[in-house]
Amino acid sequence: MAKKYVDINTLKYLLYDVYQLEEVLNQGRFDDHDISSMNLFLDSVKDFSDRELYPYFKEMDEHPAHYKDGGVEVHKQVGVMMKQGGEMGFISGPFDYEEGGLQLPMMLYTASSFIQEAANNHLTGYTGLTLGAAELIINFASQELKDTYVPKMLSGDWGGTMCLTEPQAGSSLSDITTKAIPQSDGSYKISGQKIFISGGDHQYADNIVHLVLARIEGAPAGTKGISLFVVPKKRPDEDGNLVSNDVTTVADFQKMGQRGYCTTHLGFGDAGECRGYLVGEANKGLKYMFLMMNGARIAVGRGGAAIATAAYHASLEYAKERPQGRKLASTGKKDPEEGQTFIINHPDVRRMLLFQKTVSEGSLGLVLLASKYYDLKHTLTDKNEKEKYGLLLELIIPMVKTYPSEMGAQSVSNGLQVLGGYGFCTDFILQQYHRDIRIFSIYEGTTGIQSQDLLGRKLLLQDGKALQLLTEEIKQTINSALKYDDLKIYAGKLGDKLQEASRVIQHLIGFAKKGDYERFLSDATPFMEYLSTITLSWIWLEMAANAKNALVTGKKTYSEEFYESKIHSMKFYFKYELPKTNGLAEVLQNEEVLTIAGEKEVFN
Amino acid sequence: MAKKYVDINTLKYLLYDVYQLEEVLNQGRFDDHDISSMNLFLDSVKDFSDRELYPYFKEMDEHPAHYKDGGVEVHKQVGVMMKQGGEMGFISGPFDYEEGGLQLPMMLYTASSFIQEAANNHLTGYTGLTLGAAELIINFASQELKDTYVPKMLSGDWGGTMCLTEPQAGSSLSDITTKAIPQSDGSYKISGQKIFISGGDHQYADNIVHLVLARIEGAPAGTKGISLFVVPKKRPDEDGNLVSNDVTTVADFQKMGQRGYCTTHLGFGDAGECRGYLVGEANKGLKYMFLMMNGARIAVGRGGAAIATAAYHASLEYAKERPQGRKLASTGKKDPEEGQTFIINHPDVRRMLLFQKTVSEGSLGLVLLASKYYDLKHTLTDKNEKEKYGLLLELIIPMVKTYPSEMGAQSVSNGLQVLGGYGFCTDFILQQYHRDIRIFSIYEGTTGIQSQDLLGRKLLLQDGKALQLLTEEIKQTINSALKYDDLKIYAGKLGDKLQEASRVIQHLIGFAKKGDYERFLSDATPFMEYLSTITLSWIWLEMAANAKNALVTGKKTYSEEFYESKIHSMKFYFKYELPKTNGLAEVLQNEEVLTIAGEKEVFN
Repeated sequence: MAKKYVDINTLKYLLYDVYQLEEVLNQGRFDDHDISSMNLFLDSVKDFSDRELYPYFKEMDEHPAHYKDGGVEVHKQVGVMMKQGGEMGFISGPFDYEEGGLQLPMMLYTASSFIQEAANNHLTGYTGLTLGAAELIINFASQELKDTYVPKMLSGDWGGTMCLTEPQAGSSLSDITTKAIPQSDGSYKISGQKIFISGGDHQYADNIVHLVLARIEGAPAGTKGISLFVVPKKRPDEDGNLVSNDVTTVADFQKMGQRGYCTTHLGFGDAGECRGYLVGEANKGLKYMFLMMNGARIAVGRGGAAIATAAYHASLEYAKERPQGRKLASTGKKDPEEGQTFIINHPDVRRMLLFQKTVSEGSLGLVLLASKYYDLKHTLTDKNEKEKYGLLLELIIPMVKTYPSEMGAQSVSNGLQVLGGYGFCTDFILQQYHRDIRIFSIYEGTTGIQSQDLLGRKLLLQDGKALQLLTEEIKQTINSALKYDDLKIYAGKLGDKLQEASRVIQHLIGFAKKGDYERFLSDATPFMEYLSTITLSWIWLEMAANAKNALVTGKKTYSEEFYESKIHSMKFYFKYELPKTNGLAEVLQNEEVLTIAGEKEVFN
Repeated sequence: MAKKYVDINTLKYLLYDVYQLEEVLNQGRFDDHDISSMNLFLDSVKDFSDRELYPYFKEMDEHPAHYKDGGVEVHKQVGVMMKQGGEMGFISGPFDYEEGGLQLPMMLYTASSFIQEAANNHLTGYTGLTLGAAELIINFASQELKDTYVPKMLSGDWGGTMCLTEPQAGSSLSDITTKAIPQSDGSYKISGQKIFISGGDHQYADNIVHLVLARIEGAPAGTKGISLFVVPKKRPDEDGNLVSNDVTTVADFQKMGQRGYCTTHLGFGDAGECRGYLVGEANKGLKYMFLMMNGARIAVGRGGAAIATAAYHASLEYAKERPQGRKLASTGKKDPEEGQTFIINHPDVRRMLLFQKTVSEGSLGLVLLASKYYDLKHTLTDKNEKEKYGLLLELIIPMVKTYPSEMGAQSVSNGLQVLGGYGFCTDFILQQYHRDIRIFSIYEGTTGIQSQDLLGRKLLLQDGKALQLLTEEIKQTINSALKYDDLKIYAGKLGDKLQEASRVIQHLIGFAKKGDYERFLSDATPFMEYLSTITLSWIWLEMAANAKNALVTGKKTYSEEFYESKIHSMKFYFKYELPKTNGLAEVLQNEEVLTIAGEKEVFN
């Protein structure tokens, strides 16, 4: 295990300097907080992560969660995470005081979870999903349901889950068949199967509160007939005692990675005795669930960014300490009499490390930016401003979920490569990051689904207003960068890319206008890569402009080298990553139709 | 497990139709073979793989090779592979009759091993490395060593290994320190440690013959002082009885993938009793080893291609059988009353599958082509022709090793994505392919090292003659394709790329001419991706031109759809993959220096 898994300076720099948490703290909701209290919180999270999360990371992989005697057995740190994390506010943090929360900004919650996840990505899901489930109850359920379930969930005594996926439906939620039959007491009898339920069962929660999508008997077909229910593992009887609610743990899926994080198959009502309690109105379940989805998708992107970050530090540490080979002399030869150099001095190793650095830090910037939009959307009072940040959030959210997952996985793979043969061995941690991060492109809507959301829904929002807003934000950064002579060339490149993107998007939207939606969306995934890469270039230019400003004005919180390294990283991203969009632009404007199913069999 | 792991038609099409094994069989060495005997051999290999390799593939992952009581315990199929594989010629195949071989062309040996590896990549290394070790003895060692070791190796009774890597040296072979001290009987006393020794010990070989690089006392520093030794685990005593040779199994590395293929740490001469026998002349060890390296690198590329192929068939099968979601109507909506469609009908899934298909079949084409060059180099009698194919082989070999490994890994990852959440679960096989293939970018010289070989050595061979020869070959394909109206546009694209490549290469070589070798090679890896992608486009254009010819002339061995699918795949590769070179060309011609170590610390 490496000594370092996160660079707190970079996190704070992005949080305070580049993305200005202060602007969020200025909103009334956060009156009790200031930078210094936020710093104290983050430092305590770092201490906790050093002590209770990071040391158990490898062990949790080696001793995976598993099914045993009708339940799931997980590592003991799950209990520590739920109870101590509960006390520290990992579950309640963002909620209102009156709900038992700390009224923390999402930006701070993201930063805090990012540290925890970089330390141990197998544990944050247990608290995170409990938070998500509680959030649905707080926002949409009756006072009685709130009183019964929320306090125990926020304290970490009870867990929470989201039950969407069913074996026959997968990502196609319109096909779910879990059934709810109204009972005379106002509850519903629930029956069905749910799979891939993260944190679905374990020995460290006295109860688990499932938020279940189901179809009330007679409801319309498709997504319009889906309702949301609270379905606890144990329900309170008339005397308030917890009794079994006929929720069965059928199995625990064994996975390639995130093996400490259980993934259960649950059966509801096998004995006809499972009760569910409707959340809000009937047939609005999917709408409620999706109102919470932005938070869930920020969380996935954050996890990808966190694993990529931890992997970067592990590779960097190895590269600084491992002597091997020699530098090339001007003859093109090496002198064997000369001592070996550290591998960090080989250009190809530096290239891989800079790739890791730019992907991981850029991804962190992206999730913090989304969290800021989230905070502003939820706390601003001016209607136009509120709408503006809401639209910006909607537009970037599919990229926030996807870029850190997809490119994070590539950067971890590069990190493994830095270690050569050792990277493939279980004694070293890179192989675990490589396995763990692979699920992030699948969680909460696969890359394909996010890409269709980006191109098919978000770009078209309010006739393209979201895109127009994003373009304006990017242009502001370009203008800041243009102030500095040595950033001008990069600002210019990004400006050119914006113009190219506009042409690409017009071309694609042409198909939608003609009613050819299948064709419009057929290259949504390359489009995702295209727009995300441009967006990350913007994140890096913003960081570089901010760093340059600190160097020029002398208002420095960190060392000169720190700021210089951010500018260097931006240049790296513009040299090595941004040009990928050249090819993607060509792909997206190529008129050939090759991936739409036709009469001919193209797979032999 | 999927029903199919390889498409024998595609293999035979590439072998016989596109790359014309017949041209090789026409050489005198292969007089006893014809297409029909080759077909019989391949069919028997497929039967064997169906029966003895594929059914144990998952099991070998679940019960990995491991250290026990001073040795390594492996799965029982290792014994079957060595003994039955030995009988079938998997070890002796390519050798001369007089050495106990079958005089099989490398093309056929590659095709045969490809089938085995697609079935189970954990087993082919045991026979493959035994072949490699025997080849070194046959080519360079004394008759006595040959007589003592080779027959038992070819039969599979004894195993063979290559011992290069040492803990402190890694890829830097000039730093190896294993010592050899001359003894009065002509043997050497060997002492040192070797790591990452594939197939280094197991219970199914009566003896293991290690080919060890070591330094004779007093030898010059660096690579010029390295000699090659036969160091058996057990050596024959004066009476011909096998006695221990003081080779210790220190450990078996536990790995993320290829867990059935042992990777040992060996100690030589811990008790001062280890004897080695010099192969050929002193201080020429590295030269001998590298003369065998082309075969080893073809083998790695072949393995990458094989895993990518098996993963493709597994994903394809899943996509054809899994119903989920609906096709988009012209309204952009979906009708929930309509039945679900199979996921293969979703454009994004088809895109991923076509990516898998083009990478895996293209990679197979590349390794077969390299094998053909190998055969022609070794069997042609005309000096110029021999040299020509030798140069072509040298030039493409780093790409043959790298492209199937790097892009194969990406294609397997796409294959996992096709299965969604199931792809991440150990019940499905994609996650195993994902873990297994990751080592191929590291084996036998990492991607970074291959890339430096390509740009720094192979492009400069005989003043660029190899590159000129390759360009001529590509132009021939372009000319064939230009004959068909509907291939003209692709032929034109590849022609343009050749011109662009020429400019890119001139730009890079400019640095070498100025003596700035570090800069010349600093972007060798992006250059590898650049030239490989162009090379694969050539492979695909050749396949398409050949398919078109079959359709036009009616000389068809396979169905019309088969040929059409090859043309369709070529179009896919040209639309989605070739444009990546646009960005890479920009990267390679960008003058900024960002990855060469300087005074400033760029990693904070």
